[in-house]
Amino acid sequence: MSDSTLVSEVDQSLYALSPEGQALLFTEAKTAYAFRDEPVGDDHLKAIYELFKWAPTSANINPLRILYVRTEDGKRRLLDGVAPPNREQTASAPVTAVLAADTQFAEYVPFLAPSNPELRAVLESNEALRVAQMDLNARLQAGYFVLAVRAAGLAAGPMGGFNARAVDEEFFPDGRWKSILLVNIGHPAENAFRERGARPSYEQAVQLV
Amino acid sequence: MSDSTLVSEVDQSLYALSPEGQALLFTEAKTAYAFRDEPVGDDHLKAIYELFKWAPTSANINPLRILYVRTEDGKRRLLDGVAPPNREQTASAPVTAVLAADTQFAEYVPFLAPSNPELRAVLESNEALRVAQMDLNARLQAGYFVLAVRAAGLAAGPMGGFNARAVDEEFFPDGRWKSILLVNIGHPAENAFRERGARPSYEQAVQLV
Repeated sequence: MSDSTLVSEVDQSLYALSPEGQALLFTEAKTAYAFRDEPVGDDHLKAIYELFKWAPTSANINPLRILYVRTEDGKRRLLDGVAPPNREQTASAPVTAVLAADTQFAEYVPFLAPSNPELRAVLESNEALRVAQMDLNARLQAGYFVLAVRAAGLAAGPMGGFNARAVDEEFFPDGRWKSILLVNIGHPAENAFRERGARPSYEQAVQLV
Repeated sequence: MSDSTLVSEVDQSLYALSPEGQALLFTEAKTAYAFRDEPVGDDHLKAIYELFKWAPTSANINPLRILYVRTEDGKRRLLDGVAPPNREQTASAPVTAVLAADTQFAEYVPFLAPSNPELRAVLESNEALRVAQMDLNARLQAGYFVLAVRAAGLAAGPMGGFNARAVDEEFFPDGRWKSILLVNIGHPAENAFRERGARPSYEQAVQLV
Protein backbone atom coordinates (compact mmCIF):
# COMPACT_ATOMS: atom_id res chain seq x y z
CA MET A 1 0.00 0.00 0.00
CA SER A 2 1.29 3.44 -0.76
CA ASP A 3 0.32 7.03 -0.43
CA SER A 4 2.51 8.23 -3.20
CA THR A 5 0.15 10.65 -4.92
CA LEU A 6 1.10 13.96 -3.38
CA VAL A 7 -1.39 16.74 -3.72
CA SER A 8 1.17 18.77 -5.58
CA GLU A 9 1.13 16.13 -8.30
CA VAL A 10 -2.52 16.78 -9.09
CA ASP A 11 -3.02 19.08 -12.07
CA GLN A 12 -4.25 22.31 -10.49
CA SER A 13 -6.32 23.17 -13.56
CA LEU A 14 -8.74 20.46 -12.40
CA TYR A 15 -9.73 22.50 -9.35
CA ALA A 16 -11.93 25.59 -9.11
CA LEU A 17 -11.07 26.12 -5.45
CA SER A 18 -7.83 28.06 -5.02
CA PRO A 19 -4.70 26.32 -3.72
CA GLU A 20 -5.13 28.37 -0.52
CA GLY A 21 -8.70 27.11 -0.16
CA GLN A 22 -7.63 23.53 -0.82
CA ALA A 23 -4.93 23.83 1.83
CA LEU A 24 -7.27 25.46 4.35
CA LEU A 25 -10.02 22.86 4.09
CA PHE A 26 -8.33 19.68 2.92
CA THR A 27 -4.68 19.25 2.10
CA GLU A 28 -2.96 21.12 4.94
CA ALA A 29 -5.73 21.09 7.54
CA LYS A 30 -5.25 18.74 10.45
CA THR A 31 -7.30 17.69 13.45
CA ALA A 32 -6.32 19.76 16.49
CA TYR A 33 -5.73 18.04 19.82
CA ALA A 34 -4.76 21.08 21.90
CA PHE A 35 -5.90 24.70 21.85
CA ARG A 36 -4.51 28.08 22.84
CA ASP A 37 -6.17 29.96 25.66
CA GLU A 38 -7.85 32.37 23.26
CA PRO A 39 -11.62 32.77 23.13
CA VAL A 40 -13.85 32.24 20.11
CA GLY A 41 -16.61 34.83 19.97
CA ASP A 42 -20.28 34.00 19.58
CA ASP A 43 -20.22 35.97 16.30
CA HIS A 44 -17.61 33.52 15.03
CA LEU A 45 -19.81 30.56 16.01
CA LYS A 46 -22.70 32.12 14.12
CA ALA A 47 -20.47 32.70 11.09
CA ILE A 48 -19.73 28.96 10.99
CA TYR A 49 -23.45 28.22 10.96
CA GLU A 50 -24.22 30.80 8.28
CA LEU A 51 -21.79 29.08 5.91
CA PHE A 52 -22.45 25.48 6.91
CA LYS A 53 -26.20 25.72 6.55
CA TRP A 54 -26.15 26.04 2.74
CA ALA A 55 -24.67 22.61 2.03
CA PRO A 56 -27.25 20.17 0.70
CA THR A 57 -29.46 17.58 2.37
CA SER A 58 -32.03 15.13 0.97
CA ALA A 59 -35.19 17.08 0.16
CA ASN A 60 -33.69 19.96 2.18
CA ILE A 61 -34.61 18.36 5.51
CA ASN A 62 -31.59 19.74 7.44
CA PRO A 63 -31.88 17.57 10.57
CA LEU A 64 -28.59 18.62 12.22
CA ARG A 65 -28.63 20.78 15.33
CA ILE A 66 -25.72 22.29 17.22
CA LEU A 67 -25.11 22.92 20.89
CA TYR A 68 -22.10 25.18 21.40
CA VAL A 69 -20.59 24.54 24.82
CA ARG A 70 -18.31 27.45 25.74
CA THR A 71 -18.86 28.35 29.40
CA GLU A 72 -16.92 26.84 32.28
CA ASP A 73 -20.10 25.35 33.68
CA GLY A 74 -21.08 23.92 30.30
CA LYS A 75 -17.66 22.35 29.88
CA ARG A 76 -17.85 20.79 33.33
CA ARG A 77 -21.20 19.23 32.49
CA LEU A 78 -19.86 17.95 29.17
CA LEU A 79 -16.60 16.43 30.37
CA ASP A 80 -18.20 13.61 32.32
CA GLY A 81 -19.58 12.26 29.04
CA VAL A 82 -16.29 12.49 27.14
CA ALA A 83 -14.08 9.43 26.88
CA PRO A 84 -11.02 9.88 29.16
CA PRO A 85 -8.47 10.05 26.30
CA ASN A 86 -10.45 12.97 24.82
CA ARG A 87 -10.98 14.95 28.04
CA GLU A 88 -7.82 17.00 28.08
CA GLN A 89 -8.26 18.26 24.51
CA THR A 90 -11.93 19.01 25.18
CA ALA A 91 -11.05 20.94 28.32
CA SER A 92 -8.49 22.99 26.41
CA ALA A 93 -10.88 23.97 23.59
CA PRO A 94 -12.65 27.31 24.05
CA VAL A 95 -15.74 25.79 22.43
CA THR A 96 -16.96 22.26 21.92
CA ALA A 97 -19.84 21.80 19.47
CA VAL A 98 -22.20 18.95 20.28
CA LEU A 99 -23.63 18.00 16.90
CA ALA A 100 -27.02 16.36 17.28
CA ALA A 101 -29.84 15.02 15.12
CA ASP A 102 -33.29 16.49 15.76
CA THR A 103 -35.58 13.45 16.04
CA GLN A 104 -38.55 15.71 15.25
CA PHE A 105 -36.95 17.37 12.23
CA ALA A 106 -40.08 16.64 10.18
CA GLU A 107 -41.86 19.51 11.95
CA TYR A 108 -39.79 21.98 9.95
CA VAL A 109 -40.25 20.26 6.61
CA PRO A 110 -43.31 22.31 5.48
CA PHE A 111 -41.14 25.42 5.84
CA LEU A 112 -37.96 23.90 4.40
CA ALA A 113 -39.52 21.97 1.51
CA PRO A 114 -42.78 23.76 0.64
CA SER A 115 -42.82 22.24 -2.84
CA ASN A 116 -43.16 18.80 -1.24
CA PRO A 117 -46.39 19.18 0.78
CA GLU A 118 -46.79 15.46 1.50
CA LEU A 119 -43.31 14.99 2.93
CA ARG A 120 -44.00 15.79 6.57
CA ALA A 121 -46.82 13.26 6.74
CA VAL A 122 -44.77 10.66 4.88
CA LEU A 123 -41.90 11.05 7.34
CA GLU A 124 -44.11 11.10 10.42
CA SER A 125 -45.95 7.95 9.39
CA ASN A 126 -42.87 5.93 8.46
CA GLU A 127 -40.41 5.62 11.31
CA ALA A 128 -37.85 3.55 9.41
CA LEU A 129 -37.70 6.12 6.61
CA ARG A 130 -37.61 9.03 9.03
CA VAL A 131 -34.77 7.57 11.09
CA ALA A 132 -32.80 6.57 8.00
CA GLN A 133 -33.12 10.07 6.55
CA MET A 134 -32.17 11.64 9.87
CA ASP A 135 -29.16 9.38 10.32
CA LEU A 136 -27.85 9.90 6.81
CA ASN A 137 -28.39 13.63 6.55
CA ALA A 138 -27.33 14.65 10.05
CA ARG A 139 -24.01 12.89 9.47
CA LEU A 140 -23.55 14.39 6.01
CA GLN A 141 -24.13 17.75 7.65
CA ALA A 142 -21.60 16.93 10.37
CA GLY A 143 -19.04 16.56 7.58
CA TYR A 144 -20.02 19.94 6.15
CA PHE A 145 -19.76 21.44 9.64
CA VAL A 146 -16.16 20.33 10.13
CA LEU A 147 -15.15 21.98 6.86
CA ALA A 148 -17.12 25.14 7.71
CA VAL A 149 -15.17 25.45 10.98
CA ARG A 150 -11.98 25.41 8.94
CA ALA A 151 -13.45 27.90 6.46
CA ALA A 152 -13.96 30.22 9.43
CA GLY A 153 -10.23 30.07 10.15
CA LEU A 154 -10.54 27.87 13.20
CA ALA A 155 -9.12 24.46 13.99
CA ALA A 156 -11.55 21.56 14.39
CA GLY A 157 -11.13 18.49 16.55
CA PRO A 158 -13.97 16.07 15.76
CA MET A 159 -14.40 13.28 18.32
CA GLY A 160 -16.53 10.18 18.06
CA GLY A 161 -15.34 8.98 21.48
CA PHE A 162 -18.00 10.07 23.95
CA ASN A 163 -20.96 8.68 25.83
CA ALA A 164 -23.89 9.90 23.77
CA ARG A 165 -26.44 8.74 26.31
CA ALA A 166 -24.77 10.69 29.12
CA VAL A 167 -24.42 13.81 26.98
CA ASP A 168 -28.04 13.59 25.87
CA GLU A 169 -29.31 13.13 29.43
CA GLU A 170 -27.31 16.12 30.57
CA PHE A 171 -28.12 18.57 27.78
CA PHE A 172 -31.18 17.23 25.96
CA PRO A 173 -33.32 15.74 28.73
CA ASP A 174 -36.53 15.99 26.70
CA GLY A 175 -35.09 13.45 24.26
CA ARG A 176 -35.63 15.50 21.12
CA TRP A 177 -31.98 16.03 20.12
CA LYS A 178 -29.63 13.02 19.91
CA SER A 179 -25.91 13.74 19.88
CA ILE A 180 -23.81 12.18 17.11
CA LEU A 181 -20.40 13.90 17.17
CA LEU A 182 -18.40 16.34 19.27
CA VAL A 183 -16.19 18.93 17.58
CA ASN A 184 -13.65 20.92 19.54
CA ILE A 185 -13.20 24.39 18.07
CA GLY A 186 -10.51 26.99 18.65
CA HIS A 187 -7.08 28.27 17.82
CA PRO A 188 -4.53 25.46 17.77
CA ALA A 189 -1.77 25.33 20.38
CA GLU A 190 1.82 24.83 19.27
CA ASN A 191 1.61 21.11 20.03
CA ALA A 192 -1.88 20.78 18.55
CA PHE A 193 -1.18 18.39 15.73
CA ARG A 194 -0.13 14.78 15.33
CA GLU A 195 1.67 13.32 12.37
CA ARG A 196 -0.71 12.96 9.47
CA GLY A 197 -1.92 9.42 8.89
CA ALA A 198 -1.91 7.76 5.49
CA ARG A 199 -5.05 7.55 3.41
CA PRO A 200 -6.38 4.68 1.31
CA SER A 201 -4.87 4.86 -2.15
CA TYR A 202 -7.07 5.69 -5.12
CA GLU A 203 -6.83 2.08 -6.21
CA GLN A 204 -7.97 0.82 -2.81
CA ALA A 205 -10.87 3.22 -2.41
CA VAL A 206 -12.19 3.73 -5.93
CA GLN A 207 -13.62 1.56 -8.69
CA LEU A 208 -14.73 2.71 -12.13
CA VAL A 209 -17.31 1.18 -14.45
CA MET B 1 -39.65 31.18 10.99
CA SER B 2 -37.33 33.38 9.04
CA ASP B 3 -34.24 33.14 6.96
CA SER B 4 -33.31 36.74 7.34
CA THR B 5 -29.58 36.42 7.91
CA LEU B 6 -28.15 36.89 4.47
CA VAL B 7 -24.65 35.70 3.92
CA SER B 8 -23.64 39.20 2.95
CA GLU B 9 -24.51 40.33 6.46
CA VAL B 10 -21.85 38.10 7.98
CA ASP B 11 -18.64 39.95 8.81
CA GLN B 12 -16.18 38.63 6.22
CA SER B 13 -13.27 39.07 8.61
CA LEU B 14 -14.62 36.00 10.43
CA TYR B 15 -13.76 33.76 7.47
CA ALA B 16 -10.38 32.49 6.30
CA LEU B 17 -11.86 31.01 3.13
CA SER B 18 -12.14 33.63 0.38
CA PRO B 19 -15.57 34.91 -0.71
CA GLU B 20 -15.04 33.02 -3.99
CA GLY B 21 -14.37 29.82 -2.07
CA GLN B 22 -17.39 30.38 0.16
CA ALA B 23 -19.58 30.89 -2.91
CA LEU B 24 -18.15 27.86 -4.71
CA LEU B 25 -18.67 25.41 -1.86
CA PHE B 26 -21.50 26.84 0.22
CA THR B 27 -23.34 30.08 -0.39
CA GLU B 28 -23.85 30.01 -4.16
CA ALA B 29 -23.54 26.30 -4.85
CA LYS B 30 -26.74 24.44 -5.60
CA THR B 31 -27.70 20.85 -6.21
CA ALA B 32 -27.80 20.13 -9.95
CA TYR B 33 -30.74 18.24 -11.42
CA ALA B 34 -29.70 18.30 -15.10
CA PHE B 35 -26.32 18.12 -16.81
CA ARG B 36 -24.80 19.21 -20.10
CA ASP B 37 -23.62 16.57 -22.52
CA GLU B 38 -19.98 17.19 -21.67
CA PRO B 39 -17.75 14.45 -20.35
CA VAL B 40 -15.84 14.46 -17.06
CA GLY B 41 -12.43 12.90 -17.45
CA ASP B 42 -11.07 10.17 -15.23
CA ASP B 43 -8.29 12.56 -14.19
CA HIS B 44 -10.97 14.89 -12.86
CA LEU B 45 -12.54 12.05 -10.87
CA LYS B 46 -9.15 11.27 -9.38
CA ALA B 47 -8.62 14.95 -8.53
CA ILE B 48 -11.84 14.87 -6.47
CA TYR B 49 -10.53 11.88 -4.53
CA GLU B 50 -7.11 13.41 -3.95
CA LEU B 51 -8.72 16.40 -2.25
CA PHE B 52 -11.56 14.60 -0.48
CA LYS B 53 -9.35 11.98 1.11
CA TRP B 54 -7.63 14.41 3.50
CA ALA B 55 -10.72 15.34 5.50
CA PRO B 56 -10.79 13.71 8.93
CA THR B 57 -12.35 10.50 10.23
CA SER B 58 -12.40 8.93 13.69
CA ALA B 59 -9.01 7.35 14.34
CA ASN B 60 -8.33 7.81 10.61
CA ILE B 61 -10.41 4.77 9.66
CA ASN B 62 -11.61 6.18 6.29
CA PRO B 63 -14.39 3.65 5.57
CA LEU B 64 -15.87 5.37 2.49
CA ARG B 65 -15.42 3.84 -0.95
CA ILE B 66 -16.45 5.21 -4.33
CA LEU B 67 -17.72 3.56 -7.47
CA TYR B 68 -17.68 6.00 -10.38
CA VAL B 69 -20.27 4.95 -12.94
CA ARG B 70 -19.53 6.69 -16.23
CA THR B 71 -20.01 4.21 -19.09
CA GLU B 72 -23.27 3.67 -20.91
CA ASP B 73 -23.39 0.09 -19.73
CA GLY B 74 -22.67 1.12 -16.15
CA LYS B 75 -25.43 3.72 -16.25
CA ARG B 76 -27.90 1.18 -17.60
CA ARG B 77 -27.08 -1.19 -14.73
CA LEU B 78 -27.43 1.63 -12.21
CA LEU B 79 -30.70 3.14 -13.38
CA ASP B 80 -32.84 0.18 -12.38
CA GLY B 81 -31.92 0.87 -8.75
CA VAL B 82 -32.63 4.60 -8.89
CA ALA B 83 -36.00 5.90 -7.73
CA PRO B 84 -38.08 6.95 -10.78
CA PRO B 85 -38.09 10.69 -9.94
CA ASN B 86 -34.27 10.62 -9.91
CA ARG B 87 -33.75 8.62 -13.11
CA GLU B 88 -33.74 11.43 -15.64
CA GLN B 89 -31.15 13.48 -13.78
CA THR B 90 -29.02 10.39 -13.25
CA ALA B 91 -29.21 9.51 -16.93
CA SER B 92 -28.13 13.03 -17.88
CA ALA B 93 -25.08 13.09 -15.59
CA PRO B 94 -21.81 12.06 -17.25
CA VAL B 95 -20.80 10.38 -13.98
CA THR B 96 -22.69 9.09 -10.99
CA ALA B 97 -20.65 8.28 -7.90
CA VAL B 98 -21.99 5.44 -5.79
CA LEU B 99 -20.68 6.21 -2.31
CA ALA B 100 -20.38 3.07 -0.22
CA ALA B 101 -19.16 1.96 3.17
CA ASP B 102 -16.56 -0.81 3.23
CA THR B 103 -17.87 -3.31 5.78
CA GLN B 104 -14.34 -4.69 6.13
CA PHE B 105 -12.65 -1.31 6.56
CA ALA B 106 -10.84 -2.61 9.66
CA GLU B 107 -8.46 -4.52 7.39
CA TYR B 108 -6.79 -1.25 6.45
CA VAL B 109 -6.57 0.10 9.98
CA PRO B 110 -3.04 -1.17 10.72
CA PHE B 111 -1.85 0.84 7.71
CA LEU B 112 -4.03 3.90 8.37
CA ALA B 113 -3.59 4.10 12.15
CA PRO B 114 -0.24 2.45 12.95
CA SER B 115 -0.02 4.27 16.28
CA ASN B 116 -3.12 2.39 17.41
CA PRO B 117 -2.03 -1.25 17.08
CA GLU B 118 -4.97 -2.70 19.00
CA LEU B 119 -7.64 -0.99 16.93
CA ARG B 120 -8.13 -3.59 14.22
CA ALA B 121 -8.73 -6.34 16.76
CA VAL B 122 -11.02 -4.11 18.81
CA LEU B 123 -13.13 -3.33 15.75
CA GLU B 124 -13.20 -6.90 14.47
CA SER B 125 -14.30 -8.28 17.85
CA ASN B 126 -17.04 -5.69 18.48
CA GLU B 127 -19.64 -5.60 15.73
CA ALA B 128 -21.76 -2.86 17.28
CA LEU B 129 -18.74 -0.54 17.58
CA ARG B 130 -17.51 -1.43 14.11
CA VAL B 131 -20.86 -0.77 12.45
CA ALA B 132 -21.40 2.46 14.40
CA GLN B 133 -17.96 3.74 13.39
CA MET B 134 -18.54 2.74 9.78
CA ASP B 135 -21.98 4.37 9.65
CA LEU B 136 -20.83 7.62 11.23
CA ASN B 137 -17.59 8.05 9.35
CA ALA B 138 -18.72 6.93 5.90
CA ARG B 139 -21.50 9.52 6.05
CA LEU B 140 -19.20 12.25 7.34
CA GLN B 141 -16.97 11.43 4.40
CA ALA B 142 -19.94 11.57 2.01
CA GLY B 143 -20.41 15.18 3.14
CA TYR B 144 -16.74 15.92 2.47
CA PHE B 145 -17.09 14.27 -0.95
CA VAL B 146 -19.95 16.53 -2.03
CA LEU B 147 -17.89 19.62 -1.20
CA ALA B 148 -14.79 18.17 -2.92
CA VAL B 149 -16.82 17.74 -6.14
CA ARG B 150 -17.63 21.43 -5.98
CA ALA B 151 -14.01 22.27 -5.21
CA ALA B 152 -13.14 20.50 -8.45
CA GLY B 153 -15.39 22.92 -10.33
CA LEU B 154 -18.14 20.40 -10.97
CA ALA B 155 -21.79 20.37 -9.99
CA ALA B 156 -22.97 17.72 -7.54
CA GLY B 157 -26.39 16.15 -7.32
CA PRO B 158 -26.53 14.00 -4.18
CA MET B 159 -29.46 11.57 -4.07
CA GLY B 160 -30.69 9.52 -1.16
CA GLY B 161 -33.56 8.14 -3.25
CA PHE B 162 -32.38 4.79 -4.54
CA ASN B 163 -32.71 1.10 -3.82
CA ALA B 164 -29.49 0.34 -1.98
CA ARG B 165 -30.12 -3.39 -2.00
CA ALA B 166 -30.57 -3.47 -5.79
CA VAL B 167 -27.49 -1.30 -6.36
CA ASP B 168 -25.42 -3.45 -4.02
CA GLU B 169 -26.54 -6.69 -5.68
CA GLU B 170 -25.68 -5.30 -9.09
CA PHE B 171 -22.29 -3.76 -8.33
CA PHE B 172 -21.07 -5.25 -5.07
CA PRO B 173 -22.25 -8.88 -5.20
CA ASP B 174 -19.64 -10.07 -2.71
CA GLY B 175 -21.36 -7.94 -0.04
CA ARG B 176 -18.27 -6.06 1.07
CA TRP B 177 -19.30 -2.54 -0.01
CA LYS B 178 -22.71 -1.17 1.04
CA SER B 179 -23.98 1.87 -0.85
CA ILE B 180 -25.16 4.87 1.17
CA LEU B 181 -25.55 7.79 -1.28
CA LEU B 182 -25.50 8.50 -5.00
CA VAL B 183 -23.94 11.71 -6.28
CA ASN B 184 -24.44 12.85 -9.86
CA ILE B 185 -21.42 14.75 -11.15
CA GLY B 186 -20.99 16.94 -14.19
CA HIS B 187 -21.40 20.34 -15.77
CA PRO B 188 -24.82 21.79 -15.01
CA ALA B 189 -27.32 22.32 -17.82
CA GLU B 190 -29.07 25.66 -18.16
CA ASN B 191 -32.13 24.32 -16.36
CA ALA B 192 -30.05 22.49 -13.75
CA PHE B 193 -31.12 24.31 -10.64
CA ARG B 194 -34.27 24.70 -8.57
CA GLU B 195 -35.11 27.63 -6.35
CA ARG B 196 -33.06 27.49 -3.18
CA GLY B 197 -34.95 26.25 -0.18
CA ALA B 198 -34.90 28.01 3.19
CA ARG B 199 -32.68 26.80 5.98
CA PRO B 200 -33.39 26.52 9.71
CA SER B 201 -32.62 29.83 11.38
CA TYR B 202 -29.71 30.11 13.79
CA GLU B 203 -32.18 30.28 16.65
CA GLN B 204 -33.93 27.10 15.52
CA ALA B 205 -30.80 25.06 14.94
CA VAL B 206 -28.35 26.28 17.55
CA GLN B 207 -28.21 26.45 21.34
CA LEU B 208 -25.40 27.90 23.44
CA VAL B 209 -24.39 27.03 27.00
